[in-house]
Amino acid sequence: MPTLYIANRNYSSWSLRPWVLMRELAIPFDERLVPFGDPAAFRAFSPTGKVPCLVDAGTTVWDSLAIVETLAERRPDVWPRERDARAWARSAAAEMHSGFQALRTTCTMNCGVRVRIDPFPEAVLADLARLDALWAEGLERFGGPFLAGPLFTAVDAFFAPVAFRVQTYAAPVAPASRAYLERLLALPSMRTWYEAALAEPWRDAPHEEELRGIGTVTQDLRAPASGTRA
Amino acid sequence: MPTLYIANRNYSSWSLRPWVLMRELAIPFDERLVPFGDPAAFRAFSPTGKVPCLVDAGTTVWDSLAIVETLAERRPDVWPRERDARAWARSAAAEMHSGFQALRTTCTMNCGVRVRIDPFPEAVLADLARLDALWAEGLERFGGPFLAGPLFTAVDAFFAPVAFRVQTYAAPVAPASRAYLERLLALPSMRTWYEAALAEPWRDAPHEEELRGIGTVTQDLRAPASGTRA
Repeated sequence: MPTLYIANRNYSSWSLRPWVLMRELAIPFDERLVPFGDPAAFRAFSPTGKVPCLVDAGTTVWDSLAIVETLAERRPDVWPRERDARAWARSAAAEMHSGFQALRTTCTMNCGVRVRIDPFPEAVLADLARLDALWAEGLERFGGPFLAGPLFTAVDAFFAPVAFRVQTYAAPVAPASRAYLERLLALPSMRTWYEAALAEPWRDAPHEEELRGIGTVTQDLRAPASGTRA
Repeated sequence: MPTLYIANRNYSSWSLRPWVLMRELAIPFDERLVPFGDPAAFRAFSPTGKVPCLVDAGTTVWDSLAIVETLAERRPDVWPRERDARAWARSAAAEMHSGFQALRTTCTMNCGVRVRIDPFPEAVLADLARLDALWAEGLERFGGPFLAGPLFTAVDAFFAPVAFRVQTYAAPVAPASRAYLERLLALPSMRTWYEAALAEPWRDAPHEEELRGIGTVTQDLRAPASGTRA
């Protein structure tokens, strides 16, 4: 059984992507959660010191998109079965993988808090407008309720962190985008992730500082902080 | 036959990646080069207004890594045949796709000039050190002369622009890295690209301005600039 290394559920948007895909597709895996704070702990399993990292029969796959494509070799349900939908899904997931820098930098994932940003930077609004257009295209062209058709696939997994970001920052998106993100938040795997994120006792100082530079924290729904790992 | 849209060979590092892969693997395609300068010209074929973009039988694939994976569905030589090498190659290509921001931002691809940077920013040196470590691992583990073994595959295509960047900026890399980059520069497809880049008559103001902010241009090997497309 492969091992998936992840970091704090509250912060680690890249960890969420393969995790939610494997859970929704019922791909068995052992999970190892390593909380942020000790870079050496990450270097022990990842050549970049980053998560996620999949280790399967001695082979290490150290990037989220590479993990997805490696899983897709054996699982035809990772991507849409229809050729055109698959090409679209791969393009959209790759666009997320290398892009949306303003959204990712300004609205860092922090599942358990609510933050007021006023005003939203123009570059973030531009990223959100592109997401609206991209999602509308997928939902219309392939019929929904997921981005590339009736089934949850890797392209939905790649945008799953945006659901938590929009929730945290009350980011302005189109009604169709909001409805899509609510479908993501209602998935069993997403609910499990969210509840576990709220229960985490860890606070990572760099992530918490990023948050204070961005806006005003209006709610903190997380379990009380504790210096020790639960 | 698929159509591959690219931009100026002198500047467009993302265009180079699928182009060099398809040429080295003798995958037939029609090439459409659209020079930078008119965003509307790019929006006509690409939903993001960016290159590269592959259009095949009505299906548009608008990201370099998605193009590679789409080609890999029909061509087993896009990635290494051995499972462990393939997982490594996919991880390394994906790391390039989303990372090495300092190198990409500071040492933008500009094939036809030579630039002195002194000193190199620490963040660029850190990116180069990571490339040294990554390439050394691949070359040693899979036996060379390419990163994941005896054959040129998509992971080499993903690092091909670095060969031009190191040449342009005389960027400091390890001897084994330099030897690997020289092998890339000697490939027929890379020589064809380079010669065509030098012959281009176009200058794109934003790319040229980036260059002037980075260091001192010591040589310009390009054909004389002209306002018109050849």
